[in-house]
Amino acid sequence: MDQREANDIENEGLGCEWKEMERNTSSFSCDRQMSGTVREPLLVKNRINATSQIAIVGANVCPIESLDYEIVENDLFKQDWRSRSKVQIFQYVVLKWTLSLLIGLSTGVVAFFNNLAVENIAGFKLLLTTDLMFQRKYFQAFAAYAGCNMVLSMCAAALCAYIAPAAAGSGIPEVKAYLNGVDAYSILAPSTLFVKIFGSIFGVAAGFVVGKEGPMVHTGACIAALLGQGGSRKYHLTWKWLRYFKNDRDRRDLITCGAAAGVAAAFRAPVGGVLFALEEAASWWRSALLWRTFFTTAIVAMVLRSLIQFCQSGKCGLFGQGGLIMFDVSSAVPAYDTADLLAVMFLGIIGGILGSLYNYLVDKVLRIYSIINERGPIFKILLVMAVSFLTSCCAYGLPWFANCTPCPIGLDEACPTTDGSGNYKNFQCPPRHYNDLASILLNTNDDAIRNLLNSSNEKEFQLATLCIFFAAMYFLGIITYGIAIPSGLFIPVILAGASYGRLVGTIVGPTSNLDVGLFALLGAASFLGGTMRMTVSLCVILLELTNNLLMLPLVMLVLLISKTVADCFNKGVYDQIVKMKGLPYMEAHAEPYMRQLVAGDVVSGPLITFSAVEKVGNIIHALKMTRHNGFPVIDEPPFSDAPELCGLVLRYHLLVLLKGKKFTKQSVLSGTEILRKFHAFDFAKAGSGKGPKLEDLDITEEEMEMYVDLHPIANTSPYTVVETMSLAKAAILFRGLGLRHLCVVPKTPGRPPIVGILTRHDFMPEHILGIYPHMDPHK
Amino acid sequence: MDQREANDIENEGLGCEWKEMERNTSSFSCDRQMSGTVREPLLVKNRINATSQIAIVGANVCPIESLDYEIVENDLFKQDWRSRSKVQIFQYVVLKWTLSLLIGLSTGVVAFFNNLAVENIAGFKLLLTTDLMFQRKYFQAFAAYAGCNMVLSMCAAALCAYIAPAAAGSGIPEVKAYLNGVDAYSILAPSTLFVKIFGSIFGVAAGFVVGKEGPMVHTGACIAALLGQGGSRKYHLTWKWLRYFKNDRDRRDLITCGAAAGVAAAFRAPVGGVLFALEEAASWWRSALLWRTFFTTAIVAMVLRSLIQFCQSGKCGLFGQGGLIMFDVSSAVPAYDTADLLAVMFLGIIGGILGSLYNYLVDKVLRIYSIINERGPIFKILLVMAVSFLTSCCAYGLPWFANCTPCPIGLDEACPTTDGSGNYKNFQCPPRHYNDLASILLNTNDDAIRNLLNSSNEKEFQLATLCIFFAAMYFLGIITYGIAIPSGLFIPVILAGASYGRLVGTIVGPTSNLDVGLFALLGAASFLGGTMRMTVSLCVILLELTNNLLMLPLVMLVLLISKTVADCFNKGVYDQIVKMKGLPYMEAHAEPYMRQLVAGDVVSGPLITFSAVEKVGNIIHALKMTRHNGFPVIDEPPFSDAPELCGLVLRYHLLVLLKGKKFTKQSVLSGTEILRKFHAFDFAKAGSGKGPKLEDLDITEEEMEMYVDLHPIANTSPYTVVETMSLAKAAILFRGLGLRHLCVVPKTPGRPPIVGILTRHDFMPEHILGIYPHMDPHK
Repeated sequence: MDQREANDIENEGLGCEWKEMERNTSSFSCDRQMSGTVREPLLVKNRINATSQIAIVGANVCPIESLDYEIVENDLFKQDWRSRSKVQIFQYVVLKWTLSLLIGLSTGVVAFFNNLAVENIAGFKLLLTTDLMFQRKYFQAFAAYAGCNMVLSMCAAALCAYIAPAAAGSGIPEVKAYLNGVDAYSILAPSTLFVKIFGSIFGVAAGFVVGKEGPMVHTGACIAALLGQGGSRKYHLTWKWLRYFKNDRDRRDLITCGAAAGVAAAFRAPVGGVLFALEEAASWWRSALLWRTFFTTAIVAMVLRSLIQFCQSGKCGLFGQGGLIMFDVSSAVPAYDTADLLAVMFLGIIGGILGSLYNYLVDKVLRIYSIINERGPIFKILLVMAVSFLTSCCAYGLPWFANCTPCPIGLDEACPTTDGSGNYKNFQCPPRHYNDLASILLNTNDDAIRNLLNSSNEKEFQLATLCIFFAAMYFLGIITYGIAIPSGLFIPVILAGASYGRLVGTIVGPTSNLDVGLFALLGAASFLGGTMRMTVSLCVILLELTNNLLMLPLVMLVLLISKTVADCFNKGVYDQIVKMKGLPYMEAHAEPYMRQLVAGDVVSGPLITFSAVEKVGNIIHALKMTRHNGFPVIDEPPFSDAPELCGLVLRYHLLVLLKGKKFTKQSVLSGTEILRKFHAFDFAKAGSGKGPKLEDLDITEEEMEMYVDLHPIANTSPYTVVETMSLAKAAILFRGLGLRHLCVVPKTPGRPPIVGILTRHDFMPEHILGIYPHMDPHK
Repeated sequence: MDQREANDIENEGLGCEWKEMERNTSSFSCDRQMSGTVREPLLVKNRINATSQIAIVGANVCPIESLDYEIVENDLFKQDWRSRSKVQIFQYVVLKWTLSLLIGLSTGVVAFFNNLAVENIAGFKLLLTTDLMFQRKYFQAFAAYAGCNMVLSMCAAALCAYIAPAAAGSGIPEVKAYLNGVDAYSILAPSTLFVKIFGSIFGVAAGFVVGKEGPMVHTGACIAALLGQGGSRKYHLTWKWLRYFKNDRDRRDLITCGAAAGVAAAFRAPVGGVLFALEEAASWWRSALLWRTFFTTAIVAMVLRSLIQFCQSGKCGLFGQGGLIMFDVSSAVPAYDTADLLAVMFLGIIGGILGSLYNYLVDKVLRIYSIINERGPIFKILLVMAVSFLTSCCAYGLPWFANCTPCPIGLDEACPTTDGSGNYKNFQCPPRHYNDLASILLNTNDDAIRNLLNSSNEKEFQLATLCIFFAAMYFLGIITYGIAIPSGLFIPVILAGASYGRLVGTIVGPTSNLDVGLFALLGAASFLGGTMRMTVSLCVILLELTNNLLMLPLVMLVLLISKTVADCFNKGVYDQIVKMKGLPYMEAHAEPYMRQLVAGDVVSGPLITFSAVEKVGNIIHALKMTRHNGFPVIDEPPFSDAPELCGLVLRYHLLVLLKGKKFTKQSVLSGTEILRKFHAFDFAKAGSGKGPKLEDLDITEEEMEMYVDLHPIANTSPYTVVETMSLAKAAILFRGLGLRHLCVVPKTPGRPPIVGILTRHDFMPEHILGIYPHMDPHK
């Protein structure tokens, strides 16, 4: 008994030590409630920014359970689904596919609704402005335009700032981190979904240089999470069948489907969506998942097609005429020779350089914004309104510098156009003239892209116009990402890329066989490659956006070059944001310096272990003093001959076990009794923030002295490595199998059966280089 | 000393025991030279067929080294490439991309050459036949046609039977198995490449119902393997820089690129190639690889485009007019309503049923053929000639049953056509009439597909014609796969699928909005989905083949349905062939019955271990008596306090070490001396069949009594699992990290430090169900 108490005190001491250590690497720790505690400027070099661009996302990061827990839980309770009854198997399979179907359906509908709302709101705003311009009421026109933008942006910012700060930004980095095993606070909550949808509508309609594509990915993921959770338990909306999906593996699968559906809906690119989920979003991939995401995106494509067909009869107000292909350039036949290839390669190099510069600037601007955003919701809204005003000024002011161009003769379209969108805006010009800058700047983003890719009139845009437009889009894009609205990066990047592509096309035009519209497409591809650094998925998305298969070799070429060039300077924009937010993202490869270390080198000191039959008080104490999530359990005499590793218990399972109160007065095995009391689904993982809490446990003083048998909840065969294993190999094991805890066992016999536990944080460069500061991270 | 000798004898005993055991599971064992030893009929149920359809491939199967050996070898010699000099890094990176470039270039050129040769040979043959038909010399026409076919098929068969039996069949299953870690005998040898290219040309030109697409994938993989090996060492063609690629990881990466390049070249579908490599071929995937395969296929696309453009000026003889899009249907605009969707779903169901039946029949026919093929090369050739004669009879005979159709009025094309290919064959019909069956049956496969997908004349083919054609293709396809020629499955499947698709289209034609050409496309998609069971890659390949993006939702739908239906009956055709050949393919998921076993249950008895400083004689003896590839090394007193697992040594490394002859008279540590003698590249893996052999070692009696220190070559931190770990979890670890050996360690202390080694074969259902015959494999 004395020994146990001594142990207990030791544990306590260790607990504190660990807390101390966790503070050092605190940007990752699960237990920090850090909003408002950081006051240092964020631009200090090499400081890890634990706060997001709006200071709250990422502050409370919890890694997701190991992928192998599904098996463990099933093993524990012999509840493998294949050994379940036929009815249960049927329920599981039906539900799995039904959920995928529902994700596809709802994402498709939401995306269409988003499109519809944006085009109607923005269309109305532009019609109003054009009308006033037509009456030569220039000041009123600006007031109406800027006013509409201001109101819309205020709505978006207020939603974001007050209801769901996690909805700001693109959302792709957070989804990517989730699928890597990092669950940022409330990133998939219903409130986030609500704000993401409406914030995105208001933000895009407010004329910001932002896209709705990134937010659609996040929306898709949120819809999937919501459907998987089966609504709210509070309102009794949850459904018994959904218990099969209360584990991290099924949840992750659903969210992968959701992200794919989001891309598929945003770009109307079903195959692109699958590939995006595969290449950019998911960290672990199974071919069964390929199959399910493919099903989901097929549903999205069907839904969108039907809705668009329904709208083509004119029942959807100002909804555009674009079909399933958003930016169709299939009419242009690409013919090219060596000189054209050189021009295309030049575009690729430009795209790489501009793209990496863009990433660099976005990172810097995000750090500045996070200082402002941390001051409170009011500051967030003010920042949004300032950017909105600046954007309005650019969109309305810059076209005055453009010259009026006489309308070309023999056009199919009206010139100047009289409706809100359209190709040839009259602006301040005399009749039968158009202002080419206004046609792209004072327009919706989608129409601007369509105009830039249009190749029916080679001379539609003057060189100066394209230069001004490019500069405006490049810098507005940079300063807009990071304000408190849902903001995608695809559209700004495509706009800027298409404008310099068309610029190059116009310059080399007379000597080239490719037309300017195709040059604009290649410019967009090069800039996308330079910022996002995706390859196959971008290629397929562009193919599905433009429906010109013959451009494929050129698009591939330009993407290859721009990615190669940009990779020399920095990482892709999403990776950069993940890092900046301090999300502990596990890379697929081991860093080179890890080869010089062994697993034992980074395990931080001895750790808290439990006996297989442990005193309740000790458990409560350990749970209170630390935030550890996994505790090794040691079989000790009299239950075994020598101390040996029995397994690993999870905090969550311990809480459920303690809540059951199956305690014994003496230290005896009571596993079977305990098992009889519980059902496997009692241990199923609840949605984020739900499940039992330590504070809710109500254990009496007497019970504190009693014992509980941990055998039934222990994962009796955790993955282990020997302490002398190369850290690189341990990292590959950890990442390859998607673990949360990796037990390190001693090499030589006769020592305690476990040396320590490696978690995600122990593999982070910041942690390792913190312990070994003299190690060269590049060697 | 006595104890050591006792040990020795025990080892010997075990060695024999193992040999005995290996004989039981012999279809997998590395050491079997079994060609000619199997005489039992192959149709006996549940017998695992260790021989391929032509009896030799797969007889000598060696698993590939663990993926982690790159790290191990680098760790051993501190030769991490990042710690190499700048020049070496530069060499590695340049070479990696140069090799990818070369693979792309050569695969593109080979594919084009293949196309060119086939179209010229087959075109000439058809012209000759048509000419004779035109002169009403029907018998001579048949003789010419069947004679040409016979000669060509004899060439193909002779090449296959005498030079490289491994070149027969599709090659995709073997490439798939290679990328899973199973190196079938001479599957990537230069002779295989040679036969694959020319055999495929002769086979396709001989009018067989086979494709050149599967062989192209194999060709791409062979080219990659050849380039990675740097030519032949015999002719001093190997290159110093290529030593970086003498390991299994880099070789596997190259072969993945090669397979992708093969698909890209065969279908002129660069993105489809990448996805095929990802979905069907590769077992492990890294995003860096996505990037490299993408580069390779982009090169293929460029090469093909240039060569096709060169040929369009008419310099390539009878080479077709098809551009980068092989079967362009982009002119057809799909409009569909609910009734059409029902028809499409019906097609999907039909495709699923016919596809699974096809797989079943192919499997049965392969088993029959393997009996014939095993009798010797002559029988192989006779079988090929018999099938060739049957094919010629069908192609020439069946059109006589078709009615002559008057030429439609107002056609762009000539009717009847006068050249070899073309749409409207005159055959026996009067002038201004055409024989619709002859236009598809007595034609090249590519032209037949093009005719079936053609929608310019809805009534071009009569119902009876399509029925006959479908039946012919379905059964000829089944009996042709498995004869001793390189034969792809894609084209027969597309032909049969397109014909029943067009049949359905013609029947529902009057009530449908979709035209018959699109129905044919959907039929092909459904049958492909039903046999191959791929999803995304098939979808993209079909998209790139036909260039009609608007068909995407329908193609996705039909693929989903047909795959779902077919999966109810059996596995995909490639998986089935892999299984039938007895290649020990590791599935990505663990089988359900594995959850009821632990790792210790399948480890077969005690195993041969070495002391850390071992007597040379013992090593030689163990190497002679067993074919084991990995041996655990135990640190024993006096080198450690208690026996502990030092690591794992590989047979290959042992041979290199013994060849170096750094022995000592006494049992002492001599590791540093040994290391000084060797260079890291001495241990680099040679190409298949090269490297030191046990017979080449020339160890004297005196040396036999000496000792050698195994520390320098031991992998000191092999991945281990506890004996009580669920076999399912062990399987996931094994497969997830791509291991070859997995050490099983005891749970309780005080026992020998290693219980056994799990290898690929221990996870095979045949092995497990052999030990536990009463286990239900489905539970």
